[in-house]
Amino acid sequence: MISKLIDRIVNTGAPIVVGLDPKLDFVPEEMKKKCFEEKGENLEGAAEAFWQFNKEIIDHIYDIVPAVKPQIAMYEELGIPGLITFKKTVEYCKEKGLIVIGDIKRGDIGSTSLSYAAGHLGSVTIGGKTFKGFDEDFATVNPYLGSDGVKPFIDVCNKEDKGIFVLVKTSNPSSGEFQDRLIDGRPLYEHVGEQVEKWGLESMDGSYSNVGAVVGATYPEMGRVLRGIMPHAYILVPGYGAQGGTGKDLVHFFDKDGLGAIVNSSRGIIAAWKSDAYKEFADGKVGEAARAAALTMKADIESALRA
Amino acid sequence: MISKLIDRIVNTGAPIVVGLDPKLDFVPEEMKKKCFEEKGENLEGAAEAFWQFNKEIIDHIYDIVPAVKPQIAMYEELGIPGLITFKKTVEYCKEKGLIVIGDIKRGDIGSTSLSYAAGHLGSVTIGGKTFKGFDEDFATVNPYLGSDGVKPFIDVCNKEDKGIFVLVKTSNPSSGEFQDRLIDGRPLYEHVGEQVEKWGLESMDGSYSNVGAVVGATYPEMGRVLRGIMPHAYILVPGYGAQGGTGKDLVHFFDKDGLGAIVNSSRGIIAAWKSDAYKEFADGKVGEAARAAALTMKADIESALRA
Repeated sequence: MISKLIDRIVNTGAPIVVGLDPKLDFVPEEMKKKCFEEKGENLEGAAEAFWQFNKEIIDHIYDIVPAVKPQIAMYEELGIPGLITFKKTVEYCKEKGLIVIGDIKRGDIGSTSLSYAAGHLGSVTIGGKTFKGFDEDFATVNPYLGSDGVKPFIDVCNKEDKGIFVLVKTSNPSSGEFQDRLIDGRPLYEHVGEQVEKWGLESMDGSYSNVGAVVGATYPEMGRVLRGIMPHAYILVPGYGAQGGTGKDLVHFFDKDGLGAIVNSSRGIIAAWKSDAYKEFADGKVGEAARAAALTMKADIESALRA
Repeated sequence: MISKLIDRIVNTGAPIVVGLDPKLDFVPEEMKKKCFEEKGENLEGAAEAFWQFNKEIIDHIYDIVPAVKPQIAMYEELGIPGLITFKKTVEYCKEKGLIVIGDIKRGDIGSTSLSYAAGHLGSVTIGGKTFKGFDEDFATVNPYLGSDGVKPFIDVCNKEDKGIFVLVKTSNPSSGEFQDRLIDGRPLYEHVGEQVEKWGLESMDGSYSNVGAVVGATYPEMGRVLRGIMPHAYILVPGYGAQGGTGKDLVHFFDKDGLGAIVNSSRGIIAAWKSDAYKEFADGKVGEAARAAALTMKADIESALRA
């Protein structure tokens, strides 16, 4: 699967993933009103608003970026109707040719991780036929439980040509509380990074592995070290834009050939229509603003990589 | 919320939580056949089988145990129909007076954890009205992202009288890979345990806190140490029975008054009808076998605590 993602990155020239993390505040009033009228001012109406909002963005970016990353928490917040929108979003993105990274951060004991892996990346067999729960292309995985919790995902990656990104060093301010603590003189995240590299050798797909890593743009120096520790891992980099990461922070996450990393932006793209930088779209042109913001981000990364 | 759980533990005399982690293999053929005939031999039919299976168990145990712990992965594996069964199960258990611990092991950056917390423990406001996504009483939380990822759950606990159990030392064989690594001479899980104790002081409810900890029955010596480090944290103990933990392993997790811990068993109870120990229920008496197994487990823990 990582080779498919790389193909799309090369074809679009944009190592960018758009975080589809909707909030009601991001949805223009008129769009919200229509959805509430149709489905009610309730969870169903809010989930419909997320769906219309996502569709608008997807329709305007699918030809210029390789991938999207819906954060399932935003959908889970709305219960079942929200998760129905999550599923429809995954399906629609795949129809449009986008690679879908389910940002689910799951991870549990082996038998339980197996169920998560089957539900999100694999399939389940009922009466001899196979069925798919959510069917993303990639999922994010939490490493706290060790190999037991990660291996079932790797098995599904190998069986169904899918991929994962394992949390190594997250973008949030308190990520250091445990991740930075020194073990044998080196921070925990480096030890996790070493495991990611090892796990990855079990699922190679070209020069890179289907087992990638999450490393926050907000910690560029750690990105540099981790790039070296995990030569076969693609790095998914959150934290660009709204969380504070900039283009020049990103250079260290990439390999010399400009591959090896894909940078996520959520609010900075999907809520661009509300920001001062894109005032011309302030009358609710969600999609146009998202496209403009994605192109600006592409140029920012390009120029940083060229420097 | 922890005081409500303790009341129910005292009233039933059973520091036991039944893990509602259904698998199609656990569902008797006749029950499965009926569900498949009604809903199709597909995700909907399998989800219906989980629902009928859960109901049978709940109806036979609700008066003798204080709590249940549905593992959401088992439901997520079946996609949307599975999650509808998860939601119905949570509702039905609460109607029956059971405390529901959603075993969701979520955890993310702050703004994202806020969405998980709202969806599982809290509520979401739409047009001035509040709606609830899944509405469990407790949720399990992964600490890898540090305080940012945990605090939004604590805020919701305080606002809505709910609780969480933070993963400290998990029951699986590879849990030591990262959790046992030494930091300043002490394993990571002790450092996480110290944070749990600190976080817990922000949500006290009687002698214990709404912020509990998950510590596997498979590591009794570590349970003893962690019991001391987290005097205000209730300990949720998985790994009893099928995973290898026994009654006498559990003593160290409890305080001297017999409180302070609640022990989970999943397969050992819900699939008891398939085990040699409960042959008299082998013709598909799921509920009766579950009740017998729960009573046996209660006696096992009682005798261990008395010894």
